[in-house]
Amino acid sequence: MIIVMDAPAVQEVKQVLDELQYLGVEGHITECFNRTIITADGDVLQKNDKHFEGLPGVEKVYFITTPFKLVSRQFHSDTSIVSIRGVDFGSRAIPVIAGPCAIESYEQLYDTAVAVKKAGACILRAGTYKPRTSPYSFQGLEREGLAILQAVSRQVDMPVVSEVTDPRLVENFCEAVDILQIGARNMQNFALLKEVAHSKKPVLLKRGPASTIEEWLLAAEYIIAGGNSQIILCERGIRTFEPYTRNTLDLNAVALAKVLSHLPVIVDPSHGTGQWRLVGPMAKASLAAGADGLIIEVHPSPAEALSDGPQSLTPENFDILINELRSLANVLHRQI
Amino acid sequence: MIIVMDAPAVQEVKQVLDELQYLGVEGHITECFNRTIITADGDVLQKNDKHFEGLPGVEKVYFITTPFKLVSRQFHSDTSIVSIRGVDFGSRAIPVIAGPCAIESYEQLYDTAVAVKKAGACILRAGTYKPRTSPYSFQGLEREGLAILQAVSRQVDMPVVSEVTDPRLVENFCEAVDILQIGARNMQNFALLKEVAHSKKPVLLKRGPASTIEEWLLAAEYIIAGGNSQIILCERGIRTFEPYTRNTLDLNAVALAKVLSHLPVIVDPSHGTGQWRLVGPMAKASLAAGADGLIIEVHPSPAEALSDGPQSLTPENFDILINELRSLANVLHRQI
Amino acid sequence: MIIVMDAPAVQEVKQVLDELQYLGVEGHITECFNRTIITADGDVLQKNDKHFEGLPGVEKVYFITTPFKLVSRQFHSDTSIVSIRGVDFGSRAIPVIAGPCAIESYEQLYDTAVAVKKAGACILRAGTYKPRTSPYSFQGLEREGLAILQAVSRQVDMPVVSEVTDPRLVENFCEAVDILQIGARNMQNFALLKEVAHSKKPVLLKRGPASTIEEWLLAAEYIIAGGNSQIILCERGIRTFEPYTRNTLDLNAVALAKVLSHLPVIVDPSHGTGQWRLVGPMAKASLAAGADGLIIEVHPSPAEALSDGPQSLTPENFDILINELRSLANVLHRQI
Amino acid sequence: MIIVMDAPAVQEVKQVLDELQYLGVEGHITECFNRTIITADGDVLQKNDKHFEGLPGVEKVYFITTPFKLVSRQFHSDTSIVSIRGVDFGSRAIPVIAGPCAIESYEQLYDTAVAVKKAGACILRAGTYKPRTSPYSFQGLEREGLAILQAVSRQVDMPVVSEVTDPRLVENFCEAVDILQIGARNMQNFALLKEVAHSKKPVLLKRGPASTIEEWLLAAEYIIAGGNSQIILCERGIRTFEPYTRNTLDLNAVALAKVLSHLPVIVDPSHGTGQWRLVGPMAKASLAAGADGLIIEVHPSPAEALSDGPQSLTPENFDILINELRSLANVLHRQI
Repeated sequence: MIIVMDAPAVQEVKQVLDELQYLGVEGHITECFNRTIITADGDVLQKNDKHFEGLPGVEKVYFITTPFKLVSRQFHSDTSIVSIRGVDFGSRAIPVIAGPCAIESYEQLYDTAVAVKKAGACILRAGTYKPRTSPYSFQGLEREGLAILQAVSRQVDMPVVSEVTDPRLVENFCEAVDILQIGARNMQNFALLKEVAHSKKPVLLKRGPASTIEEWLLAAEYIIAGGNSQIILCERGIRTFEPYTRNTLDLNAVALAKVLSHLPVIVDPSHGTGQWRLVGPMAKASLAAGADGLIIEVHPSPAEALSDGPQSLTPENFDILINELRSLANVLHRQI
Repeated sequence: MIIVMDAPAVQEVKQVLDELQYLGVEGHITECFNRTIITADGDVLQKNDKHFEGLPGVEKVYFITTPFKLVSRQFHSDTSIVSIRGVDFGSRAIPVIAGPCAIESYEQLYDTAVAVKKAGACILRAGTYKPRTSPYSFQGLEREGLAILQAVSRQVDMPVVSEVTDPRLVENFCEAVDILQIGARNMQNFALLKEVAHSKKPVLLKRGPASTIEEWLLAAEYIIAGGNSQIILCERGIRTFEPYTRNTLDLNAVALAKVLSHLPVIVDPSHGTGQWRLVGPMAKASLAAGADGLIIEVHPSPAEALSDGPQSLTPENFDILINELRSLANVLHRQI
Repeated sequence: MIIVMDAPAVQEVKQVLDELQYLGVEGHITECFNRTIITADGDVLQKNDKHFEGLPGVEKVYFITTPFKLVSRQFHSDTSIVSIRGVDFGSRAIPVIAGPCAIESYEQLYDTAVAVKKAGACILRAGTYKPRTSPYSFQGLEREGLAILQAVSRQVDMPVVSEVTDPRLVENFCEAVDILQIGARNMQNFALLKEVAHSKKPVLLKRGPASTIEEWLLAAEYIIAGGNSQIILCERGIRTFEPYTRNTLDLNAVALAKVLSHLPVIVDPSHGTGQWRLVGPMAKASLAAGADGLIIEVHPSPAEALSDGPQSLTPENFDILINELRSLANVLHRQI
Repeated sequence: MIIVMDAPAVQEVKQVLDELQYLGVEGHITECFNRTIITADGDVLQKNDKHFEGLPGVEKVYFITTPFKLVSRQFHSDTSIVSIRGVDFGSRAIPVIAGPCAIESYEQLYDTAVAVKKAGACILRAGTYKPRTSPYSFQGLEREGLAILQAVSRQVDMPVVSEVTDPRLVENFCEAVDILQIGARNMQNFALLKEVAHSKKPVLLKRGPASTIEEWLLAAEYIIAGGNSQIILCERGIRTFEPYTRNTLDLNAVALAKVLSHLPVIVDPSHGTGQWRLVGPMAKASLAAGADGLIIEVHPSPAEALSDGPQSLTPENFDILINELRSLANVLHRQI
């Protein structure tokens, strides 16, 4: 930690040094540019990262280490592998998760599952409790949806992922799904993060639409610090000034998260674009940027979907895409 | 609802008309600019607002009405008054809520409460369960904090507001506080919104840092549609590209929310700026923009605060500010 | 300048120290947290502010001083006063600039000028060469507009401001106007900034819609470093994710620019909101936030305006607003 | 054009219809949802796109066609090919432009040119007049830089591109370079756009850091409407809230621009990331997203670069990257 004092005032400098000492960290003084600069043998983040910034005479505080620890590559240099019933994220393979935005009926889910499995998807996605901007939009089949998901999962023999939005439901979800999804809007729902940490189930953690990469990794740190290290990060587009696309897919973040963290990183090009025509190009771009997996919305009849129809692929288009991705993966020394 | 078809294709037009009819809405056809335009006698938002956008041949769908209904000024033309033990939000009066970011001890809260009450604040704010970006930051005194808050509230005879972050805690909070605060990061935590709706307690709903005004009003719509119309909206700054300030306080949103909705709107200039030096100017600007109240962080010793020290006022500075705000309120035909 | 080395490598540290010495600045070494930290007796910004960041072994470079010098309050502690024919910006007075977005005819400008002067405006604004997003939009009366502006200025005896968009036209503008406006989209048109610096005419420098406060002050630094210190800063709203308003008026930036710089700061609530209904509340909020002036669009018949009609006030509404602003200014110990 | 009236007021509806008729466009009336909706047989964009929005009684105006015409795929369905001395943008080939951010000396440019040509780059990039945020940063070798560029271009036999920032210099640039670059900060410098339109030289038009895709295409429309259709669009990252990367590379925009426009689209992963470690992954992602070319910063000794060192590749790393891109291009049925 480096603390820049805005004046070489003896009293204020002493207070900072005393507080550092109290926290078990030694501070060193350098005079520079009419200012006193205090360098401390550690970043004192515990409890209150803004504490020193608020002390009298302090102009600026710089942290040398990243605020996230257990998720960082410094902590664990190899990419972690998260295994779900034989499907590995973080290895040479690039698993593709696919399915409808929301479960609408048994038939709709079953048909989609069969189609995406045949095309090459290895995990089924489907929403049951849907977080919707408007209270008047379809909120999902909820409990009934979970039951359908569980039944289809068995019948087609595919692991499933579904978004949990309420800490009170984590237990139910753990029985019904293989991966707990934390949605973008709940990335900083800390009560929920703590609950999925306790669950020990694999977690797919979506980046918040206006969250920095650091905040995303700190959300993962909540889960890993809570005892659950089976985390798959998922970039799904951020909110910018651009109105033409639903979100701006931030592939820089994928390449960077792979440098900063040992966790596998996948991409959701469906939400990241909001337009099915852009899903293909962005799925390919994700792979080229280094993604460890994809999650793609597929609906047997997008025009009749109760949510996110415009960004869903038909099973036919999904099949074509997977084939293109396969040859791309080969050139990148990966495999689908 | 206006539906622009991208081609004058008879088949696709028929499908749209049929679906509208099925939903009990009549559609009218106009040919214009080589396109067929269908105008419907109503906005069909129920269940799936993107449904028509996904139908074949549909280029664009425009909604004529706002998606929020019960919170709109069309629904209720007078500003609603939310009353908490004699303190009215939405009337000529401009109540000021003040207190520390987080409760650190009984003494800290008691001293602050006495000081802000003396200066003119009429409601006490204080955090108990703190949503913090890092798992290693101070997370609040939690249950113990709630008890302190309740005790101080009685002792100094002030209503209190505190942020609830977990649907499982809403009942506890209802016993301990007068206003339930929904924090910015939980604005779209729909499980929580539904729970506070059931509680019938007054709710202070902060705007999410990257939420549009429409999404903010729709979050309020969740609460009002759930049976609780005692809602105070709170602008607290949005996330932009500007790094100099913690957030960008959006006072346009205050003036606009007052036009669009009948709910009272208050401002949090502490989070809206992140710097105590800017709290005064922005508190005044908020009043001039039409705010119905303020919520301000005050700490007896900001340098020792366990959170948000840099943006907290001392009781002395708070006292000076309140006096300046009083004369400002008079010119605006309001009263503090 | 503080340079954090990512490893205590002797060779790399030596290179940094040598380069600092070559630039006439001494570097001091501190070991801290397994890293070597070099503090230099000055910020070496000349020529290449990213130079040290690119050196081998350098992890991070922190600058202690602000990159802007001549515009900073450290350089000049009192607020500078910019005087234009008896109208002072930066004093106790709060001048109001008003007029149409674009000159459409002699009559339109003359009528507006008479009306805004009578209401209390002391400087006339009007566009002649209009920067328009589309090549098919009205581009202004250009040369003819400048002649009309000059004629009306004399006839109604008001100083005038108009936007110059081309370095080749600066000389012409200097003859026709009293203040050269640099528009938001040209804030980093450095060829133009250098030209208006040479002109010695007062300059109204609008903040770019996506420019940070630091970039805005550095644009002013270009002008002052080029020999022209008569600069009025103007906040006019920034681009954010919010679609309801044309821009997000950043009043934090007004309060902050007043702290960081000695230059007077005014606000344009017309562009800052894009809706005439919001101009009044935001004009008041600007004053309360500490603005040294206002620039407001007024059109005798907004519905017929060739540009920016929706955000223009009628002369009647402008008159009402000025009266409200007068009593507000009094409470703030200022004067309109 | 669709005009929604906020009340079925006879008088206001008549005014809109009269104005439409005056402009030679017929309007049709539909009653719907308690509102009158006027559909016009064309989008009346000429002169003033906000005119109708400002008329009394008008609630909202929707345009059916895109505001850009000549650059749209509706106007020209095949991708346009821009040819520069045998190098084609928009064909099956994917040309790579490479070189230093700024020319520092003859030797520096010559060495870089030889290296990038050998690796497979076919056009040389190098800055001469540099737009820099601070007036104290290196501003380029200017006139001398242009002479060096011209000399090196001949000696190594490579076409060259360099950024022109001043309309007064367009003529000089036309003699010295093969492609005129419009930099991101000048994307809406309309005086400059008009001048390069007259020049008839191929133009590389970078997207502004806070410009929408529509504004970018309208900037291109300025050039094409001015008589110059040899335009290459270039995505180079947009400004968002994310501080970890210099910009957020928007590859959605590449895929979308290819759908909306017939112009070739290339990507600048150097500015789009700001970190040389991310240039490789994002260059690959750009190709996968459909880019028609790349522009990459290469410096013989990035640590000594006078600008943008941190984002420049060494010739060795560039050589490795080009080889990886070659095999990627093959899978995408393109060629480097």
